Amino acid sequence: MGAMSAAAPAPSQPPLIALDAMGGDRMPDAAIEGALRAVSAGERVVLVGDEARLREALRSRGAELPIVHAGDVIAMQDSAGDVRRRKDASIVVATRLVKAGEAAAVVSMGHSGATMAAALLVLGRLPGVERPAILANVPTKTGFTALIDAGANADCKPAWLQQFAVMGSVYARAFYGDPNPSVGLMSIGEEEGKGNELVVAAHALLRETPGVNFHGNVEGRDLLAGTTHVVVADGFTGNVMLKLAEGEAKVLFGMVRDALRSSLRAKLGGLLVRPALRGIADRLDPGTYGAQPLLGVDGYAFIGHGSADARAVRNALGTARKMVDAGVRDRIADGLARLAGG
Amino acid sequence: MGAMSAAAPAPSQPPLIALDAMGGDRMPDAAIEGALRAVSAGERVVLVGDEARLREALRSRGAELPIVHAGDVIAMQDSAGDVRRRKDASIVVATRLVKAGEAAAVVSMGHSGATMAAALLVLGRLPGVERPAILANVPTKTGFTALIDAGANADCKPAWLQQFAVMGSVYARAFYGDPNPSVGLMSIGEEEGKGNELVVAAHALLRETPGVNFHGNVEGRDLLAGTTHVVVADGFTGNVMLKLAEGEAKVLFGMVRDALRSSLRAKLGGLLVRPALRGIADRLDPGTYGAQPLLGVDGYAFIGHGSADARAVRNALGTARKMVDAGVRDRIADGLARLAGG
Repeated sequence: MGAMSAAAPAPSQPPLIALDAMGGDRMPDAAIEGALRAVSAGERVVLVGDEARLREALRSRGAELPIVHAGDVIAMQDSAGDVRRRKDASIVVATRLVKAGEAAAVVSMGHSGATMAAALLVLGRLPGVERPAILANVPTKTGFTALIDAGANADCKPAWLQQFAVMGSVYARAFYGDPNPSVGLMSIGEEEGKGNELVVAAHALLRETPGVNFHGNVEGRDLLAGTTHVVVADGFTGNVMLKLAEGEAKVLFGMVRDALRSSLRAKLGGLLVRPALRGIADRLDPGTYGAQPLLGVDGYAFIGHGSADARAVRNALGTARKMVDAGVRDRIADGLARLAGG
Repeated sequence: MGAMSAAAPAPSQPPLIALDAMGGDRMPDAAIEGALRAVSAGERVVLVGDEARLREALRSRGAELPIVHAGDVIAMQDSAGDVRRRKDASIVVATRLVKAGEAAAVVSMGHSGATMAAALLVLGRLPGVERPAILANVPTKTGFTALIDAGANADCKPAWLQQFAVMGSVYARAFYGDPNPSVGLMSIGEEEGKGNELVVAAHALLRETPGVNFHGNVEGRDLLAGTTHVVVADGFTGNVMLKLAEGEAKVLFGMVRDALRSSLRAKLGGLLVRPALRGIADRLDPGTYGAQPLLGVDGYAFIGHGSADARAVRNALGTARKMVDAGVRDRIADGLARLAGG
């Protein structure tokens, strides 16, 4: 660690991001390639993983990056609870760098549950947060909707949804550029009494939440329509929605691709429209944001797709840096203090 | 009612369908137009609603259809509970025709909650059904997935999900032509232990359910991928998914439409590919099935979109007729008797 700077950098230096270089389907190659691109763009990254292997992969590219050794890696089929005893696992070592103040954020494309568990165990929760939650940036026609919780908490209590709303509002204020972002509560009807027991109870809380511009209930169609800046849901519903939205985009583009091969006329037209359609596919690519923040932990932790490629890694590192620079953690702590006080 | 035949028709006659001609945004015009198309195609339909108004609308078209008068209509903003006291409401009168054996099925494009409430109140539940559920035919790349429950029950118990699985299997067997349709349980991970408390408990029940070919858990992306013939979910999750899927199709096609106008080159190509793309839009149109059956009631009841047009009405009447002809109600009763016995 001697060669690395502290997490609180000199004003001119970007924050150092600890990248779990072993967790994920295409690691460590995608991690190294993504980190190198990020560093070329001015980011600061430390790779965490098998030092000999990473050193060799860097050498073969004629490149150099700081490395912190971790002799173990939690695989996709392992249990998230393994983080308790496997202290040399790359995600645990990377998260400890944040706790120690040696890195400002941890990014992993590996086991989502293990990344969450390590963040909870090593970093702990911010005061006022009962359950940290995953925030997903869902692409809409004109921008993004912040969906929270996208999968951290399958069973929720009404007060947790209220806390998600505060955290989502802080995030949207920092990232979407609106000083008063609107918050929708996912339900099955717009009227106040519509929904399951959880939502009906959460609705009553959200109406009285300081710092939250509560729009009321929204429905499934509102997520991609961008009706509100933030959509609050329990982690079960949120995760189902996120995977449905991503899957549907794939299925529909598959249908469009097939249709553009269905006749000579369509093939000819397809050649002409392809560049215009590619822009849409890029907009909907989950790799654009690269990774999703786990909000409510006392530090910065980001969870990416297991299938992440170098571009997604590079974007995840950029997202992490923006979150740190925006001071989202401290702003969440302030927002939740207002909640406790209000 | 003198001019109408009984619900159990002579073998050569199709079943008589009672159409709520007043409930819905475009009624009674869409109802009359859709009913006339259905009758031309050999269906038998009775309109239920304001007799003078319907008679006049038919006269202006030079057409005739049987009418049963109903002096009241439950509007979209009314409460579903109104069906208890507003006995002259078109949905209540239409459902009573089914109960009396004068019609074989009721179809409404009006207030969904009122249609459900009327079916529960007037027709009652089949033995072994704790909660009737709405089944939605969700278009996939190659066919349809039966999503149950699509919104009738916001809070569910594990045993209800088991009953949904039986009802969905019976439906899929009758409609999708597979003798052993697979059933997926919507969750947030494929492994048995993944999900919320409801899903984990339902998973254990579904593994032991006679007449259900249980595939295991599925995820949001599987709905449109068509991974299983049937997808079981609580009515909150199912309704959110259905509205998300429909809304996303609209947003994506809007993006494609905009992209095909974004440059001269794209415009030219757009002219060539438009016919091929129109086929996809038609496939994804919820009007293809026209209405969703409420399964588990002792009779046949169908709930359509409030925005239904004549085509959706016509297709809803056709769907209703097929359900009646296939004897889905009796087959569900048999399936649930096996469940009780197993």
